[in-house]
Amino acid sequence: MERKSIDKEKLNEFLTATVGKENFSMDPVMLLTFATDASRFEKTPDVVVRPSSTEQISKIVRYCYENEIPVIPAGARTGCSGGIIAVYGGILLDLTGMNHVLELDVDNLQVCVEPGIVNDKLNEFLKPHGFLVPGPASSYAATIGGMVGNDSSGKEAVNYGTTGAYVLKMEVVLPDGRITTVGSNALKTASGLNLVGLFTGSEGVLGVFTKIWLRLIPLPETEGIAMALFDELENAGKAVINTFKAGIIPGCVEILDKSSIYAINQYKPEMQLPDVEAMLLYEVEGSSFEIEPKINRIAEICKDSGAIEVKKATEKAEIDRLWEARSLVGAASVRVREGYSRVYAGEDLAVPISKIPEMLTFLREASQRYDFPIVTFGHVGDGNLHPAITIRKEVAEDWPKLEALIEEINQKALELGGTVTGEHGIGIARARYMKREHGEVALDIMKAIKWALDPKNIMNPGKMALNEDPEVILNKIPVKTI
Amino acid sequence: MERKSIDKEKLNEFLTATVGKENFSMDPVMLLTFATDASRFEKTPDVVVRPSSTEQISKIVRYCYENEIPVIPAGARTGCSGGIIAVYGGILLDLTGMNHVLELDVDNLQVCVEPGIVNDKLNEFLKPHGFLVPGPASSYAATIGGMVGNDSSGKEAVNYGTTGAYVLKMEVVLPDGRITTVGSNALKTASGLNLVGLFTGSEGVLGVFTKIWLRLIPLPETEGIAMALFDELENAGKAVINTFKAGIIPGCVEILDKSSIYAINQYKPEMQLPDVEAMLLYEVEGSSFEIEPKINRIAEICKDSGAIEVKKATEKAEIDRLWEARSLVGAASVRVREGYSRVYAGEDLAVPISKIPEMLTFLREASQRYDFPIVTFGHVGDGNLHPAITIRKEVAEDWPKLEALIEEINQKALELGGTVTGEHGIGIARARYMKREHGEVALDIMKAIKWALDPKNIMNPGKMALNEDPEVILNKIPVKTI
Repeated sequence: MERKSIDKEKLNEFLTATVGKENFSMDPVMLLTFATDASRFEKTPDVVVRPSSTEQISKIVRYCYENEIPVIPAGARTGCSGGIIAVYGGILLDLTGMNHVLELDVDNLQVCVEPGIVNDKLNEFLKPHGFLVPGPASSYAATIGGMVGNDSSGKEAVNYGTTGAYVLKMEVVLPDGRITTVGSNALKTASGLNLVGLFTGSEGVLGVFTKIWLRLIPLPETEGIAMALFDELENAGKAVINTFKAGIIPGCVEILDKSSIYAINQYKPEMQLPDVEAMLLYEVEGSSFEIEPKINRIAEICKDSGAIEVKKATEKAEIDRLWEARSLVGAASVRVREGYSRVYAGEDLAVPISKIPEMLTFLREASQRYDFPIVTFGHVGDGNLHPAITIRKEVAEDWPKLEALIEEINQKALELGGTVTGEHGIGIARARYMKREHGEVALDIMKAIKWALDPKNIMNPGKMALNEDPEVILNKIPVKTI
Repeated sequence: MERKSIDKEKLNEFLTATVGKENFSMDPVMLLTFATDASRFEKTPDVVVRPSSTEQISKIVRYCYENEIPVIPAGARTGCSGGIIAVYGGILLDLTGMNHVLELDVDNLQVCVEPGIVNDKLNEFLKPHGFLVPGPASSYAATIGGMVGNDSSGKEAVNYGTTGAYVLKMEVVLPDGRITTVGSNALKTASGLNLVGLFTGSEGVLGVFTKIWLRLIPLPETEGIAMALFDELENAGKAVINTFKAGIIPGCVEILDKSSIYAINQYKPEMQLPDVEAMLLYEVEGSSFEIEPKINRIAEICKDSGAIEVKKATEKAEIDRLWEARSLVGAASVRVREGYSRVYAGEDLAVPISKIPEMLTFLREASQRYDFPIVTFGHVGDGNLHPAITIRKEVAEDWPKLEALIEEINQKALELGGTVTGEHGIGIARARYMKREHGEVALDIMKAIKWALDPKNIMNPGKMALNEDPEVILNKIPVKTI
């Protein structure tokens, strides 16, 4: 796919008039900063612009529409899928400056924010009012705009749902520069096509979100934890299902499998975690009167499902101690074998819950076959697993082997009725699986929608397999090898 | 908008070969049965067809695509918005014969059903397994396909969300007859554009749902009720917000305002409901250990928010007694004044919760001004109000007055930042508000999506203001006056 070359002089003039000299840059060093996210890919945009209002964004997008210049909306660039990589160059909109709370409306259980506000910053603001907006593991950095664009979520999605579950309304700049709002300030509406649903998770390919109204979630009063150890993977899966069957929706249910436990013991030997097949960690949040009975019931369910050991905690110090294993696994997965380090790829599959034991067994077998340590953990209540693959990055032959392994993992997830991405999104990293996961017809519908809303293909082009062949795109994009 | 005339002989031949003579009808008397739903509108289709498989539906839709014949998917026809009215004639697909549970997969917390299964029938089937699929007030008749098409919900949406919250995956016949699936059997996915979200609530304008995978909700173990009386509307609103703030999500929160209380006392004087401004009814569902403390906390919150009386119940008989007022209000609203009867119109607005007192006050004032009794009740936790308007149906001048009143009510809901439909959908009844509620640009996006997926405009045409001017359509459609 050939794109027009950009008239940089004209663009310079336009941007100077629209956002001022100090709010954009074509400096190669600066552009390099915006060339990547948490994925393996990198490519510099032609310009990075820092707008401060909807009106500025509308003007910029309109200009890009008229001149067929790609526009890439970007937040904290913490995404793992290359969603903000400037595949065809163009203008990267750095939205982190638009980071204000515009209106807190407690009496209507909602808050209106700009897209660049960081989830944790918003939660700091909301805490004294008794509310929160749930977020992914990267909440300390991730922006609300990026979270809505990726329909992000983390371990608490099992209870709260994904970001889309609490988006009420959005202001959006469309690919031709027009401004609209979608959704309603009413907490429930059945009016018209569900555009909020469509825009949520659209990864910037349909427009730029400039204001977002979020439903507020009450801060839970207190919490508790149950930890259960299993010497058979199947029993851990059963315990999760039996918990739901009992009508208990935990705050989260995390799984650490054998590989994670090994990694944690390597990383911090004093943890002395027992060498079991799987550890489940349940977090329960809510009112003081419900935590203990819920934790007790979960503990019983785990025992009845075959857990060989169960521990419970409702006091802060004890909770932190039980939680420590889970919080270490990210760091532990990086250095499980000397000389091997983690690559963020193929790491976000989700399968129907009953298929988790089969998926975990497959991952262990693949790890041995490829001789790449894989540390697997994840949000078992959603079927979402993060197999952290480690390779020898300086060994050239490890890279094609890695590609083959990722392919096998994602293909297996699809064969088990799952998805290649539970929460990280498609971007360019997983675009090649779009047709396999959704089928040609469903992908055609997505392309038709993209075409209908963005006929010039200027909004974040090259993502989600919506235009060019993803293999061709991947071949154009350099992969970071450090 | 002119449509081609249908070659009925050729169609007869095609349908005989495709579904068999016994599964379609062009008999005018039979067609009359399918001319209407629970709305005020009626118009007969040219044919009613009762398909029994995805393949049959695909062939029929393909035929309609080639011959530019409208196709209207229909379930139980309990909708209140004219969503299944054959505006331009065509084929009405009666999907009530496709009513099977295709697969119950408890271990993956999901069930796959055909679209024609009735919600209560599905729940009867699920009950022994300990699960349910939440539904609207019309669950005894409403089909799952219709519920997904309307993104239906009822009083329990405040806890469970609307139907869309538990749709995992769908098989859809597209407007050109192609068959696809959208969504995933994984409980969480961030893969591609959110087509499940887009199709949910699309009211049949984008395709025919032929299989639906629903997430199972555990049956609550037990329940309890709190009833609170308020002599100031504002205090009732405060109580609702304060409940959420306390981190308590009730199973439902219903409001009966002064008008409902009056209607119920008229209908069943032995109820002797006190003459207060508003009654709130909270239902709490869950595990046995949490019901009583939750009900107690809600009772405290209501008192602190200014309730003049609070009653609690956790025993079945007492629950039923407190609930009786709410269950009578539908019947009571029909005969609040001699000679006046209920019209299903303008009855589904939702506003931000804090605006409920203002909306209720407006409705009372409008009721007096028009001299039409209006009985208002609704799902206050979502801001969704159902003002039941009664008129003298045999008095010609009441009809234009009714139109003016509906217009005022919906306009007021929009001015308060609300929506003209919380749960009933747009159809033709509310199509004239689409531009006002969503704005021209958002409506343009909806039209563009419709056009992209259904360029020949054969899928349920004439709905949601997506093609012709809604006023022109309304003028063509007879209104039932009995």
